[in-house]
Amino acid sequence: MKRQNVRTLLLIVCTFLYLLLGAAIFDALESKNEEREKARLEDIETTIQMRYNISDGDMEKLRDTTIELLPQKAGVQWKFAGSFFFCMTVITTIGYGHSTPRTNGGKVFCMIYSLIGIPLNLVMFQSVGERLNIFMGFGIKNLKRLMRFKKAEVSHTELVMIGGLTTGFITITGSLAFQKFEGWGFLDAYYFITITLTTIGFGDLVVLQKNNHLQKSPQYVFFSIMYILGALVVVASVMNLLVLRLLTLNTEDEKREQQEQA
Amino acid sequence: MKRQNVRTLLLIVCTFLYLLLGAAIFDALESKNEEREKARLEDIETTIQMRYNISDGDMEKLRDTTIELLPQKAGVQWKFAGSFFFCMTVITTIGYGHSTPRTNGGKVFCMIYSLIGIPLNLVMFQSVGERLNIFMGFGIKNLKRLMRFKKAEVSHTELVMIGGLTTGFITITGSLAFQKFEGWGFLDAYYFITITLTTIGFGDLVVLQKNNHLQKSPQYVFFSIMYILGALVVVASVMNLLVLRLLTLNTEDEKREQQEQA
Ligand SMILES: [K+]
Ligand SMILES: [K+]
Repeated sequence: MKRQNVRTLLLIVCTFLYLLLGAAIFDALESKNEEREKARLEDIETTIQMRYNISDGDMEKLRDTTIELLPQKAGVQWKFAGSFFFCMTVITTIGYGHSTPRTNGGKVFCMIYSLIGIPLNLVMFQSVGERLNIFMGFGIKNLKRLMRFKKAEVSHTELVMIGGLTTGFITITGSLAFQKFEGWGFLDAYYFITITLTTIGFGDLVVLQKNNHLQKSPQYVFFSIMYILGALVVVASVMNLLVLRLLTLNTEDEKREQQEQA
Repeated sequence: MKRQNVRTLLLIVCTFLYLLLGAAIFDALESKNEEREKARLEDIETTIQMRYNISDGDMEKLRDTTIELLPQKAGVQWKFAGSFFFCMTVITTIGYGHSTPRTNGGKVFCMIYSLIGIPLNLVMFQSVGERLNIFMGFGIKNLKRLMRFKKAEVSHTELVMIGGLTTGFITITGSLAFQKFEGWGFLDAYYFITITLTTIGFGDLVVLQKNNHLQKSPQYVFFSIMYILGALVVVASVMNLLVLRLLTLNTEDEKREQQEQA
């Protein structure tokens, strides 16, 4: 079989094994806690329902309104600042889902908006990331010359290491900042940042969702958006060094074969 | 200024303008509806609270339990099938957040799991996508020969068009399927698929969250996961044709310059 096909098959098998492994571990870590919590919460619910003798229908209505009012806990979500934050979560594909379009017009526009915005943002990130790498390369080279290193050339490995260190620094300082502003524990803040910068964006923890921050703290809104975009660019620049090469492995093998055949 | 720097600056400006535009339009589309809905829902809440004379503290407790019990509406989330579905939403970066780890161990494992799984999955998708394009190319070439076309060569544009048509076909049939299985309207089903395949994954609409599907309909679970992974591969193959070239524009300009300097 051709090398490219073997590589692709191997990748599929690895991914499925990785999914199976993950499923087993999450089951082991979360299942017990889930059962326990479910029982505890249903207990609280039943106690209150009995205390006031609330009908099942009204309980259901209360649940529905709570769920639909959830985004509004943060104040207004769709005034300009909130909409801007939302747009950022769309084009970066983070998609917290802390607030989502409810009108048909909003849904249709959201689909179109993402189809143009995501490629635009992806190309922008990669472009800025690549520029960052080039400037970093120049900077380190000059620094080395200044310090009279024998070899001023900057290796790929050095760039990756510096990218990694920068990412570590940014995520830790960011966590400390959001820990303070949002009143989260450090683990939760770090978890929020990791889930954001991987663009998974669960939305279980989202910044700017307390104390009417979106309306009342423009500086904090600005900081949050700039922090997320900036940190994503740093991640993109490391990805640019690491993964872009892997993404084109098959294509490069094809090209080589074609050249050999010619 | 160097061409690469101008291109990068232009991309940054375009992205910000695109965010401003989006924010203005979402504000116009969603703000009024948000106010109206908020008033309506708070009205329902107040009516029920007054009817049973529920204390504010107990109302708050009810709200908290409802929000925390939300994932459990789908039955158990962390038994094997649910955990597998969850793992898929992590490594693809969809991250619906319909259910998220609650224990510290689960959160830490989730961070590590994503840092390895996302690059693995990305490389796998691109690899399969590239294979798909090659096979499609071969297939069409042979078909053309069979139909005695003068030029059997398959152009890049033809491949992109076929990729686009395939994507259209997959998303429409997929929407019809989920419309039936989940009882959604067609617009909602199509919106769910778009938000999934862009990997935004808001989580406002998520499959497998009704009627204990995760536990009781293994075939439907299998279909959903396979549909999402398969459709993502098709998207990856179109992206492989369209965007991968754009992602490396700056890098290629740099290489050309270095060659010219040498
Ligand atoms: K996402
Ligand atoms: K998401």
